[in-house]
Amino acid sequence: MYKLLVIAAIFSFAAYQVGQIYQFLYAEKPLPDLDFDRYWGPGAKKPKEIAIHKIILSFEDAVIDKLKLQLNDTSYLAAPLEGVNFEYGMNTETLKGIVEYWKNDYLKRWYEEREWYIGKYPMFQTKIQGLDVHYVHVYPENAPKTSKVIPLLLLHGWPGSILEYYEVIPELVKLSMHKSFVFEFIIPFIPGFCQSEAPHKQGFDSVQTAIVFNNLMQRIGVEKYYIHGGDWGSIIGNHMATLFPEHVLGYHSILCSTNTPLSMLKTFIASFWPSMFIEESRIDWFYPQMPHLWTLLEESGYFHIQATKPDTIGAALTGNPVGLAAYILEKYSTATNKANRNKKNGGFNETIHIDRILDIIMLYHASNSITSSMRFYKETMASENPRILDTRKVTVPTACARFKHDIRHLSDFVLKDKFVNLVQSTYHEKGGHFAAMELPDVLAKDIFDFVSKVEMNKK
Amino acid sequence: MYKLLVIAAIFSFAAYQVGQIYQFLYAEKPLPDLDFDRYWGPGAKKPKEIAIHKIILSFEDAVIDKLKLQLNDTSYLAAPLEGVNFEYGMNTETLKGIVEYWKNDYLKRWYEEREWYIGKYPMFQTKIQGLDVHYVHVYPENAPKTSKVIPLLLLHGWPGSILEYYEVIPELVKLSMHKSFVFEFIIPFIPGFCQSEAPHKQGFDSVQTAIVFNNLMQRIGVEKYYIHGGDWGSIIGNHMATLFPEHVLGYHSILCSTNTPLSMLKTFIASFWPSMFIEESRIDWFYPQMPHLWTLLEESGYFHIQATKPDTIGAALTGNPVGLAAYILEKYSTATNKANRNKKNGGFNETIHIDRILDIIMLYHASNSITSSMRFYKETMASENPRILDTRKVTVPTACARFKHDIRHLSDFVLKDKFVNLVQSTYHEKGGHFAAMELPDVLAKDIFDFVSKVEMNKK
Repeated sequence: MYKLLVIAAIFSFAAYQVGQIYQFLYAEKPLPDLDFDRYWGPGAKKPKEIAIHKIILSFEDAVIDKLKLQLNDTSYLAAPLEGVNFEYGMNTETLKGIVEYWKNDYLKRWYEEREWYIGKYPMFQTKIQGLDVHYVHVYPENAPKTSKVIPLLLLHGWPGSILEYYEVIPELVKLSMHKSFVFEFIIPFIPGFCQSEAPHKQGFDSVQTAIVFNNLMQRIGVEKYYIHGGDWGSIIGNHMATLFPEHVLGYHSILCSTNTPLSMLKTFIASFWPSMFIEESRIDWFYPQMPHLWTLLEESGYFHIQATKPDTIGAALTGNPVGLAAYILEKYSTATNKANRNKKNGGFNETIHIDRILDIIMLYHASNSITSSMRFYKETMASENPRILDTRKVTVPTACARFKHDIRHLSDFVLKDKFVNLVQSTYHEKGGHFAAMELPDVLAKDIFDFVSKVEMNKK
Repeated sequence: MYKLLVIAAIFSFAAYQVGQIYQFLYAEKPLPDLDFDRYWGPGAKKPKEIAIHKIILSFEDAVIDKLKLQLNDTSYLAAPLEGVNFEYGMNTETLKGIVEYWKNDYLKRWYEEREWYIGKYPMFQTKIQGLDVHYVHVYPENAPKTSKVIPLLLLHGWPGSILEYYEVIPELVKLSMHKSFVFEFIIPFIPGFCQSEAPHKQGFDSVQTAIVFNNLMQRIGVEKYYIHGGDWGSIIGNHMATLFPEHVLGYHSILCSTNTPLSMLKTFIASFWPSMFIEESRIDWFYPQMPHLWTLLEESGYFHIQATKPDTIGAALTGNPVGLAAYILEKYSTATNKANRNKKNGGFNETIHIDRILDIIMLYHASNSITSSMRFYKETMASENPRILDTRKVTVPTACARFKHDIRHLSDFVLKDKFVNLVQSTYHEKGGHFAAMELPDVLAKDIFDFVSKVEMNKK
């Protein structure tokens, strides 16, 4: 009898420990207490405005004229060390060439071409939680009455903007032609990024952005919608799918991510016997881990400084278009493909036309928003809420697309605990972090396939 | 007999393992194969020049005139978030005030005061390993014949310059008055920092700097010398003491450091029972570790980006005096005392007069050397040599001074494996990372006491 009691005690203790570990690894933390109407405008909370205004995006002539002067002189830039390409960051010889092109070619086409291109889709503005949110809204006016209209929210990241999706839209329109559904596109600027007003108060993190964007969708009158996101847009979309499963029909991402203890443990365990957990042909996307982590370290200096001192680096890039261009261009070089670090030309114009990156730099420069966009890193890293939400499952249909040269990938083995309804998982051998700009057709097809699957399953 | 063999085998195995661990923790790695005459100039190696030229430091009028224009407009700077001081980095309201002062007060005194101050000590230039090295050299011409002349090499860091020591010199002169020795001061600019020519080739790390500086001392005709260093100067001096014990009479540092596996293990072990290893009253200088490490993480974004993408951040700060000031001023605020993060004025003028920081910013700006100075981080972090040298003991007399508000401290318990001849270890309740500028008298006294002790012991 005594022995039995001891054995029972040991088993209870063991079971308790297992339960604790299970809790730690698998338990969802309770949702934080979020104010879905929190005010981010200046000063005290103002009465709600619900009007939606159509706007025409145009830049002041004075900004363009001044910019031309600011681009006049790059002679002061320090020459690269002998034999260096992009290993030390932006190559200043290459930068000088791009600034030259910017001033003497791109800007010459500004009024008749680039400004028109940037403003080619219908743009609107409305006040959400005290902030002027700007967004593109393309409604399929000429679609046949029989087609179902499917709203798709496209979420950009940093240093990106809604422009990332300008070539994805026509590809998606093409794909849905003669299908039973057509897309309605909503593409908002994240508050603090380019045209959307920057929050005036501390604490505007990725979770708060998710709330603002769901409020935006409701304001527009779109109750249910699909989401696609890349970079921060992927994180924000992830939160929206977690917080608003009744609104989000499906979540498509090129950067599906989770950073829970469980995900880290599984990443670690799978590193010993990857073939047990991952399809043989995909192992090199994830393992060995060390070179991937090393690259992550080499490429995350900007993240570290933006997450801690955004106002310092912001002050260095504001009013300084050449410096701003250097900072942003480096990202579009290396995050597209780290092999570009060993090219003198940084890989520009190989997969993304330089005009499209200059368009984005123009938006950041003219809106003077680089500081507020970088504060997003600090707010999100300093906040507990994104990490709490990460412990909670995404139950809506999810698609995870991976583009080979992106900086980090997670396997389905790791992702499926978080995304419990993973209906599509794809691997693309080309493309990188800015897939929407590099391979808009491939990305559009991936999104289209996902939406088709989810819609089909409903029938 | 069989049993004895087994026991012997087990003991041998255990002893082997212990030996391995001991090796790992305590063994000095062999010195790397260093070329003490490596060429860092442009193109192919040129014939040696050994001339020393006296120079007058002066700035071109065109630079000053242009600077005035560049400081005219700060209206573009993004306003801080509501209620923010320096928690997000440099406060732009404070920055605007300082730029205003820079333009309307400091620059008005430029020619008759600040330029004179910067050039007040005799400055020289000579070519070492292909690089124009600039340095201050103060010889005690009027010292009594009976006094021994003691050469002291003063090494600055980033974002610093030889100016850090301008107020330390008179304090040391005062202290050695009527003593048996007087000081001779040699204060070089690190190559790539302000007036010293930047290396043209890859690989110029802290170890290579140590070699250049010992060659410089030999060129000047100073065979044996003391060293004091802070920040990178501390690391460079550490290498010099390791590589050239026959030349270095003593090593004084305000940032004694070692990062070997042994030092990390000891730091970790002492965290459990600090009072066993550290004087009770000093424990809070080192433990608990987590808040210290957290601060280090919060404050090392600049380090991360400079160690990986110096040319990118360099391009953002070059030709951009307001941005450069923001970047440098933040360091002089927070590294002086992290409590300054919660002050609207950043703590400027409380311990270091703003003029002295502007002097330093003027040097970096006028010499256009911020990029090359930041490359030092990348070269040093990418190189194996500093880590190899770190495993080797410093046998020359050493003094470790600590100033309370510096960003990181190591206890004697950790340091004494590296600095086996630690003759002085001090704790100063005031001051921080820039002690030479904050408390020149306290630092001078610390150096003086150390040199006195070492000289006394010789007798």
